Amino acid sequence: MVPRYTRPAMAEIWSPEARYRIWFEIEALAAEKMAELGTIPAGAAAAIRAGGGPKVAAMGAADVARIDEIESVTRHDVIAFLTWLGEGIGEDARYMHQGLTSSDVLDTCLAVQMTRAADLLIADVESVMSALKTRALEHKFTPTIGRSHGIHAEPTTFGLKLANHYAEFSRNRQRLIAARAEVATCALSGPIGTFASVDPRVEEHVAAKLGLAVEPVSTQVIPRDRHAAFFATLAVVAGAVERLSTEVRHLQRSEVREAEEFFHKGQKGSSAMPHKRNPVLSENLTGLARLVRGYAMPALENITLWHERDISHSSVERVIGPDATIALDFALMRLAGMMEKLTVYPERMDENLEGLGGVVHSQKVLLALTQAGMSREGAYSAVQQAAMATWLKLGKPDAQRFRENLLVQPEVSAVMSGAELDAAMDPQRDFRHVETIFARVFG
Amino acid sequence: MVPRYTRPAMAEIWSPEARYRIWFEIEALAAEKMAELGTIPAGAAAAIRAGGGPKVAAMGAADVARIDEIESVTRHDVIAFLTWLGEGIGEDARYMHQGLTSSDVLDTCLAVQMTRAADLLIADVESVMSALKTRALEHKFTPTIGRSHGIHAEPTTFGLKLANHYAEFSRNRQRLIAARAEVATCALSGPIGTFASVDPRVEEHVAAKLGLAVEPVSTQVIPRDRHAAFFATLAVVAGAVERLSTEVRHLQRSEVREAEEFFHKGQKGSSAMPHKRNPVLSENLTGLARLVRGYAMPALENITLWHERDISHSSVERVIGPDATIALDFALMRLAGMMEKLTVYPERMDENLEGLGGVVHSQKVLLALTQAGMSREGAYSAVQQAAMATWLKLGKPDAQRFRENLLVQPEVSAVMSGAELDAAMDPQRDFRHVETIFARVFG
Amino acid sequence: MVPRYTRPAMAEIWSPEARYRIWFEIEALAAEKMAELGTIPAGAAAAIRAGGGPKVAAMGAADVARIDEIESVTRHDVIAFLTWLGEGIGEDARYMHQGLTSSDVLDTCLAVQMTRAADLLIADVESVMSALKTRALEHKFTPTIGRSHGIHAEPTTFGLKLANHYAEFSRNRQRLIAARAEVATCALSGPIGTFASVDPRVEEHVAAKLGLAVEPVSTQVIPRDRHAAFFATLAVVAGAVERLSTEVRHLQRSEVREAEEFFHKGQKGSSAMPHKRNPVLSENLTGLARLVRGYAMPALENITLWHERDISHSSVERVIGPDATIALDFALMRLAGMMEKLTVYPERMDENLEGLGGVVHSQKVLLALTQAGMSREGAYSAVQQAAMATWLKLGKPDAQRFRENLLVQPEVSAVMSGAELDAAMDPQRDFRHVETIFARVFG
Amino acid sequence: MVPRYTRPAMAEIWSPEARYRIWFEIEALAAEKMAELGTIPAGAAAAIRAGGGPKVAAMGAADVARIDEIESVTRHDVIAFLTWLGEGIGEDARYMHQGLTSSDVLDTCLAVQMTRAADLLIADVESVMSALKTRALEHKFTPTIGRSHGIHAEPTTFGLKLANHYAEFSRNRQRLIAARAEVATCALSGPIGTFASVDPRVEEHVAAKLGLAVEPVSTQVIPRDRHAAFFATLAVVAGAVERLSTEVRHLQRSEVREAEEFFHKGQKGSSAMPHKRNPVLSENLTGLARLVRGYAMPALENITLWHERDISHSSVERVIGPDATIALDFALMRLAGMMEKLTVYPERMDENLEGLGGVVHSQKVLLALTQAGMSREGAYSAVQQAAMATWLKLGKPDAQRFRENLLVQPEVSAVMSGAELDAAMDPQRDFRHVETIFARVFG
Repeated sequence: MVPRYTRPAMAEIWSPEARYRIWFEIEALAAEKMAELGTIPAGAAAAIRAGGGPKVAAMGAADVARIDEIESVTRHDVIAFLTWLGEGIGEDARYMHQGLTSSDVLDTCLAVQMTRAADLLIADVESVMSALKTRALEHKFTPTIGRSHGIHAEPTTFGLKLANHYAEFSRNRQRLIAARAEVATCALSGPIGTFASVDPRVEEHVAAKLGLAVEPVSTQVIPRDRHAAFFATLAVVAGAVERLSTEVRHLQRSEVREAEEFFHKGQKGSSAMPHKRNPVLSENLTGLARLVRGYAMPALENITLWHERDISHSSVERVIGPDATIALDFALMRLAGMMEKLTVYPERMDENLEGLGGVVHSQKVLLALTQAGMSREGAYSAVQQAAMATWLKLGKPDAQRFRENLLVQPEVSAVMSGAELDAAMDPQRDFRHVETIFARVFG
Repeated sequence: MVPRYTRPAMAEIWSPEARYRIWFEIEALAAEKMAELGTIPAGAAAAIRAGGGPKVAAMGAADVARIDEIESVTRHDVIAFLTWLGEGIGEDARYMHQGLTSSDVLDTCLAVQMTRAADLLIADVESVMSALKTRALEHKFTPTIGRSHGIHAEPTTFGLKLANHYAEFSRNRQRLIAARAEVATCALSGPIGTFASVDPRVEEHVAAKLGLAVEPVSTQVIPRDRHAAFFATLAVVAGAVERLSTEVRHLQRSEVREAEEFFHKGQKGSSAMPHKRNPVLSENLTGLARLVRGYAMPALENITLWHERDISHSSVERVIGPDATIALDFALMRLAGMMEKLTVYPERMDENLEGLGGVVHSQKVLLALTQAGMSREGAYSAVQQAAMATWLKLGKPDAQRFRENLLVQPEVSAVMSGAELDAAMDPQRDFRHVETIFARVFG
Repeated sequence: MVPRYTRPAMAEIWSPEARYRIWFEIEALAAEKMAELGTIPAGAAAAIRAGGGPKVAAMGAADVARIDEIESVTRHDVIAFLTWLGEGIGEDARYMHQGLTSSDVLDTCLAVQMTRAADLLIADVESVMSALKTRALEHKFTPTIGRSHGIHAEPTTFGLKLANHYAEFSRNRQRLIAARAEVATCALSGPIGTFASVDPRVEEHVAAKLGLAVEPVSTQVIPRDRHAAFFATLAVVAGAVERLSTEVRHLQRSEVREAEEFFHKGQKGSSAMPHKRNPVLSENLTGLARLVRGYAMPALENITLWHERDISHSSVERVIGPDATIALDFALMRLAGMMEKLTVYPERMDENLEGLGGVVHSQKVLLALTQAGMSREGAYSAVQQAAMATWLKLGKPDAQRFRENLLVQPEVSAVMSGAELDAAMDPQRDFRHVETIFARVFG
Repeated sequence: MVPRYTRPAMAEIWSPEARYRIWFEIEALAAEKMAELGTIPAGAAAAIRAGGGPKVAAMGAADVARIDEIESVTRHDVIAFLTWLGEGIGEDARYMHQGLTSSDVLDTCLAVQMTRAADLLIADVESVMSALKTRALEHKFTPTIGRSHGIHAEPTTFGLKLANHYAEFSRNRQRLIAARAEVATCALSGPIGTFASVDPRVEEHVAAKLGLAVEPVSTQVIPRDRHAAFFATLAVVAGAVERLSTEVRHLQRSEVREAEEFFHKGQKGSSAMPHKRNPVLSENLTGLARLVRGYAMPALENITLWHERDISHSSVERVIGPDATIALDFALMRLAGMMEKLTVYPERMDENLEGLGGVVHSQKVLLALTQAGMSREGAYSAVQQAAMATWLKLGKPDAQRFRENLLVQPEVSAVMSGAELDAAMDPQRDFRHVETIFARVFG
């Protein structure tokens, strides 16, 4: 992932050093159990830990380069690492990796990396949730117009809008926890998954120490449906980022102006148009969501490996492993900050709410007319006629509000007085159940 | 979905009649609660149930056409249905749908349809699991070569191969159960989700009666991340279908011939080549998996609706709702049948297992040599040399097996006798842990 | 594709009858050339034409069912058809299909169907172009605000907006023509593409008669990169549908109201809110675009067939062949109609254009100030300050327009008079090159 | 893209230095034309060229860091660059970028980068074509079995297989040329595409100098259907990479062994199984193809920008611009090298060709029997019976070849002698038209 969209903590998980340290831990843990089981000499495990531990703890860019150099000869990454590592261990190095296959190390390492990445992403989602909750409570009763199809519908509150997004991220938190469990398995089952040359208890030991579950049955690899489910989940989370970003983009439109991304001092909106304050963060997030969605496709194709494995998944994972998690981590934290600092304009919300002359109360009026005795069809027709009359003269000198256009109709005034109409249209009616919904969402 | 890939039970879920019956049930249940709460006259709910119930129960193609006809005027499907329904109810029809919005009915109906579809898919996966379990137990100890990269690796058993696929479908069963829960929610919260004109208790009542959870906060619609997660799960399941199908395609290759799809009497493999028996079912399943994977993309894009909703998701769901579930239902049941009837050729598996002159035992030999005192590098070199010598003369008159090519090396014969080598290469060593793995998978 | 999104002309191309007629034509043409070459008796070709021609011309649903019935025994569609066809030909039927393989017929038929579908789609795009051109010319100089990031930027004209979309559809027309050529090839090269039992001149003859190019080298099938390129092109075209639809959705927003989809008599916008007039067509088109985009993925995966072919592409194409072309055909024609009848509100465009107090002229002012001698930084700062002052008081009682906020700055008034400022801000300056652009686009 | 899959020439195109040099070139060229038109002082253009030219020519990592630093304040990349550049130009710097908008520079720069990337990709494809042509001519008449559904079908030649892939890459070369033309346009049309403050002749001048076409009508941006078509084309090319790689993976299978990736000295196939020689290059290419395919999806979604532009496309392009072109460049050149050095085993091809006892000649026999007077149904039945008899005893002690199983049938021996049968089955009949096909493909 390009540096611009990379946060250090997530990048660190995918660094060569981090990878090699996990590799070592797997090899060292495996050796310890093998020594305990008597497969290798007891001293060998200790020697591996003693010789390798400090070496990987201290490793830096030069060591990574040295391993790359060895790999350019062996054309095999795990062998290259073991060769480098062996130089610090001596004779007993030959007891490392016994009965294992490279994928035992690679796939278990990937499991550790993906669970770490998931932990960060879960924390990120919690940051978004925290920002949304704060702002939702702040604007619990800030009236604003609800829109369907981009058209004013009925009043709602800005807090309710945010509560809805909070609930989506709350679901995504659960999905990420499930996705984490999907990939949190360990396989040390040998070249074809039969444990031909390694005792299953070694796998159990390493899994337990690494906080992973045992993969019940592996081939040479941990099955890729797990990883596909993980990346598909990231795509669903990205959808939530895009939906909330799209909401902000809409609210910041020049004609709407109900909310605005925080504008930094010194920021220039446009090289040409100095008045411009653009929702560039949320637009950026929209693009990042597309990227994360796109990464799900190769992950889904990766499921179908040939027989006990082919290595086609590897090039995909080398790229999307970091790229999808880094992009989503960045997106979530950008979103959290954006929502924390979002400038909200309640007065402008009020203006928009009243902007259509009151027709947004049509449903409540329709209901009141029906209850006052009109047929549904008659009420519908009366309301539609008044609404259209209001709509078509919006902003015109001879404009009349919805209320007036209703009362001029004899069928309406026959069943309801102006006061009754006002009562029916009272926006507070719309907010009667806000507490109920907040209780459902925030508990 | 084309009829060729459509099974009646799944198609029925998506039929217009089924949809209208669910719509009616929602309206009738809502009316009952409203009557109880006193929002509408007590008699109205009874009249709706009495007048509408038999009408929808008896509805047929002519009624569907009649509703379509009304819709061509109203340009609104729910209004068209209510108009048709009202004809059978009379006066009290005006009490239907009070305070609700079309999406309350549409989305809750979709939830019912998707959970029904999920139930079928879960049962389908169980059929695949059942077929796989039977065949896995049958071939628990049928030796076959394990392959990585398409290259012979080490012996495994055919039962173990199938156990691995069983475990994947078992995970997919869990995923489908989770996906079903994702979409099993009911929303009856009015035009913008505020319950402005409908009591939340109506929603609770309808949800409980339909076996759904209450959607904690809706806008005009049930949020689409739920549906996206559902269709993404179908894509993961489709990956499992493709992986197992690809295994069968490989096993049936002319050079492999270890298994074969059941060949029907009267079936013609090719219009031109009468000897052909092609794995057409598994190839067909590969294509169907691509389709189901493809349907996940628009579902993921559907998450981002504008404000409280736009209707862009609708055309997508009208198509992929049926298409993705019908295609996957067909694919799973075709797969189940295919695996039940798969012809397995254990003798041919044996021939292939021995086909590379014994080099497939190299890992076990490598380990034995290391344990007999050779350095890992030395042992690796000796084993690779013997393996290459065997490999390069495969099928030649002067071919020697791996065993012989090992023993001619002084470094090898210095540490191991022929008998020790035979013991090291004993295939039964590979199967020591099959029971352990089966216990993990099948419990 | 569901009937709702299906137009008869496109559906007809994919009907069984149409397919069988093309199959017959291929077989009959091949027989004619074979007879000419002496491969089969001269009379056989005539008999095939005489016996089969009327039979396929007259075929109906019962015949289709009969062929399905035969296929349920033979499990092979082409053999089933030939069997049915042979009943009408007699003895000479055995000379049909000589040296050919099923795919020769199937793939060449698909080429004919796809080129016919492409012809319809090209005509559809031309309908969209025609509607756009008419409306673009009508509104060539209708001023409207140009928006970047959803924020008012500078004036443009509504005609220019439409010209931009016209240009995109014009590119898509060219892409569809290229995509049509991609798939317009004929292969009659026998079971493995070697012409082992069929003369290449037969292929040349059939290709010429069907208006197709000869596939230079086929295997058993026409290579699927051609079809992938075709469906990927449909996805690009769908993007244009979505972009224009999104424009309309934005213009119809309650706060914008610059244009509106035509509202039919009797149409009801909402079951609950009678005042609603929703951009449901363009929202629907947005969803259809997602579908067509999704269909490109399995088409791209279809490229990788095994060896000389596997049949995994077939299930994909049975579905997306019709579905992608039918959905796009419907979408394009709906779009054409929608643009033809789009209600445009120039007065409202004017209101919005002036809605931000004149800050939308900032770039022209910035330039004028620079030319009048201010440094770019100084001018930028002055303009930004005035723009911000205007922006922050929009709609407030003490609001001042951009012009005034500029002139109060001594640095500005030192270099420009009010009249000079008015000249710099004259919107006609923005439209100086509209004719140039129109000439580029419409020629 | 990770370094492992990055070749320097392609990476260079996307480096910050390359980008800034193109930005400068655009600004300098625009200034030259503006000076010529009298929009800015004549001396300014010369000063910009003289001051900026050496500065960008000499720029290095420290300059890039300096620009990043400025951007962290301005939050605008083009302004940051112009500020940095202006330091080297002095007073006249204020005449840079007059009447332009950032996107004029960014999008025209992207056009230059994408055409350069396309040039590399076209050259890569030509390398693949060159390797394929050499090997196709080398193996023009190397017999091998053609396979459909993975099942032996009829003889073909290895050269013919390669010619087929050559033809696909030849089509892809044409597609890349078309894709290059799609994105090779220049827009310098100002903030909203109206040329409000810049003369269209400036755009024409810059376009001509950069070897680009003029974008007929832009908004603030060059329309993204162009880029979508470009990335979709890369996905189609990636499909060809995957198809050929899949062929190699199949040929290298242990049971097939007809070809093999070149095995490097020192390479270790497996850390555990020294005999393993795995098709890791072609498997790697399969994964890379998935990646490139995945990148097409966000590019397709990028088409739908809001109004005259939003910036959601930018984050996508920052990533997939480099990633898709770098991955495909790497994949193509890896493929070219792999095909150049592919080890081919003609003897093994012969063994496989004969491996099914001659049934692969069934189609030729079927035809001969028909021509000798049997009915098609009778001939088909005889051939199928003989083929099945041969097939079912393959490798058994009492196996009989297809020829023998035919001649024992009285219906067959009644119409054909053994010698006639041998003539009908002569493999040379299969290769009669190889020259014709080669002439079609290679001209």
